[in-house]
Amino acid sequence: MRGVRGAARSVAARRVRVDLGDRSYPIEIGVGTLDAVGPAVAAATGARKAILISVPPVARRYAARVERSLRDAGIRSKRLLVPDGERTKNLGQVARLYDACLAAGADRSSVVVALGGGVVGDLAGFVAATLLRGIPVVQVPTSLLAMVDSSVGGKTGVNVARGKNLVGAFHQPSLVWIDGETLDTLPTRQLAAGLAEVIKHAAIRDERLFRRLERDLDRLLALEPRVCVPILQRNCAIKAAVVSEDEREAGPRMLLNFGHTLGHAAEALKKFRGILHGEGVAMGMSFAAERSEELGLAPAGTANRLRALLVRAGLPTDLPDFPRSAYLRALAVDKKKRDDRLHFVVLRAIGRAETRPLKLAEIWPPRRKLLRRGTGG
Amino acid sequence: MRGVRGAARSVAARRVRVDLGDRSYPIEIGVGTLDAVGPAVAAATGARKAILISVPPVARRYAARVERSLRDAGIRSKRLLVPDGERTKNLGQVARLYDACLAAGADRSSVVVALGGGVVGDLAGFVAATLLRGIPVVQVPTSLLAMVDSSVGGKTGVNVARGKNLVGAFHQPSLVWIDGETLDTLPTRQLAAGLAEVIKHAAIRDERLFRRLERDLDRLLALEPRVCVPILQRNCAIKAAVVSEDEREAGPRMLLNFGHTLGHAAEALKKFRGILHGEGVAMGMSFAAERSEELGLAPAGTANRLRALLVRAGLPTDLPDFPRSAYLRALAVDKKKRDDRLHFVVLRAIGRAETRPLKLAEIWPPRRKLLRRGTGG
Repeated sequence: MRGVRGAARSVAARRVRVDLGDRSYPIEIGVGTLDAVGPAVAAATGARKAILISVPPVARRYAARVERSLRDAGIRSKRLLVPDGERTKNLGQVARLYDACLAAGADRSSVVVALGGGVVGDLAGFVAATLLRGIPVVQVPTSLLAMVDSSVGGKTGVNVARGKNLVGAFHQPSLVWIDGETLDTLPTRQLAAGLAEVIKHAAIRDERLFRRLERDLDRLLALEPRVCVPILQRNCAIKAAVVSEDEREAGPRMLLNFGHTLGHAAEALKKFRGILHGEGVAMGMSFAAERSEELGLAPAGTANRLRALLVRAGLPTDLPDFPRSAYLRALAVDKKKRDDRLHFVVLRAIGRAETRPLKLAEIWPPRRKLLRRGTGG
Repeated sequence: MRGVRGAARSVAARRVRVDLGDRSYPIEIGVGTLDAVGPAVAAATGARKAILISVPPVARRYAARVERSLRDAGIRSKRLLVPDGERTKNLGQVARLYDACLAAGADRSSVVVALGGGVVGDLAGFVAATLLRGIPVVQVPTSLLAMVDSSVGGKTGVNVARGKNLVGAFHQPSLVWIDGETLDTLPTRQLAAGLAEVIKHAAIRDERLFRRLERDLDRLLALEPRVCVPILQRNCAIKAAVVSEDEREAGPRMLLNFGHTLGHAAEALKKFRGILHGEGVAMGMSFAAERSEELGLAPAGTANRLRALLVRAGLPTDLPDFPRSAYLRALAVDKKKRDDRLHFVVLRAIGRAETRPLKLAEIWPPRRKLLRRGTGG
């Protein structure tokens, strides 16, 4: 049973700070806090005008509350909607949003407010990064995936025919405002997809969090605030720490790509249809954990333990059925490729990851089958 | 008579450093140095692959020399051509270049080499800023305008229907490589357009340079290396100093927009046809200098002295004949607008500029005529 709203104000709000010198910003995590976002936007940006970018299902539920709060804080806002779904992250939508922002009078005293999941955050963030050579963006994530992952760290991007997020910019938000209550209306499948990134954070960096997830997964899935808020905070703190260490992904930040190499390839091969980003990541993590064992880098049982948690969270762990050659072609355009090697993230244990520069044939050896075991699927 | 090639190696190469912490880079200024660019690109970026972006007339003359030098330095390159002219700076070309770069195997070990004038530099710079969330760019400017202005400072951008450079990013180059010899083949009108930015630098910051231009303009127009190279260096140094003080245009850098407010409006009204950027800037400077006098900010005679030098350089000083209302509409989308005011750059004297937040009606009062004097031509 979902219940964030019920216990709302009994759980104290929490803050995580992302330290990036003069680009530092706070992540505010609370329950039932959407009506208080306006003054925080004003304080963080000094903006007088806002462009609110969202998708219809999210806007229907939450946009009016955000707009009212902005107005009360002296910020006029204009609402721009984009279609729901990953396929919205394209250059055509970017061009349309540039035009609509300018038509709405956007200038350097304007802020973009991204209200929605990862797609809205990435797209609106890229528009903010490149409109007038960059105006501020505030992320108001309403999906679990966006809360614990994409809204923090300043990565923005859109997809092109050759692959996912191959165009983008680093553009740190001025503020991330998380209201856990919005998870109440998140479809179960989207919630599971967000859990993939939560499990990822635990798998690469925090064995204690991994054990907590193994113990509390059912209460987390029921959105009990006393379980949810601290887990949201811990995840934001992990993401914030990694981003602070390595804003532009030269080193440690690459660990966050655990599961993403094959995950992105799977999404691209499915043409972003019928697969959520978090589902791709779950499949990719499962693959990467198996390869870590096969390469002798992780102890036996690592992949099974990871897969068991993913399955309990309702996530798929087997890659879609395309030939190896199709996957290799998809990997060949990976952003992380340098020369003929990919920085592939492997596990050394649950809670500890590292990157290895691997050739494509090492990531996926010629005779390796798509489905190595039957456990996961 | 043009003569950079003749006296080539007798003028020593010079270097200007742009100080921006870990984004610092050198501007190398020489004559006949195009064949030596490869090792410098390799040293500045560590790249193994290059995407050379240029326009046909420039590529015909110079691309093979650059490619040979890159190859000798161990860098494979792929040449991509875009049509010549300001109208090429559009989102359609950006999308086409993304695709062509990815098709050519661009990855994070690649560098974009922008060989050409301001259009190529802005467009290629924006592609580099946003492809794979940013890969290095080396600017090899072949027009005077690009050498003294657009190649230095990291501003990249494209035009949209509503105005010029309304989309873009700050993306500092890894190296700027200036070979003065390429000016030999620059059309006279383009050379004059570049002089507009040279005169602008002198007008806003360096009265001594202004006097030098008044004295040596004919030798500069004849491209005498002994006059050219030091003036190129002084201009790059002014630009570099302003950029180092204020990378993201919060304060001093705005002074570089002297003449650009009305200049951009004139270009937009002409739909970027039949007017060069430098010509727009010349008209805008003339207008801004007159307004500076009218507002009692600059001594009488300031505008006439500026206009006289512009006219000697072969530049237009009167704005195209559109109604005031059309100019005001064009100004309303200016990037530098905050709330209802524009940061308008005025002269206090030749060699000293400052910004004023002015309302549109102060920039262009209701009854002010388009052509106030007949001097300018």
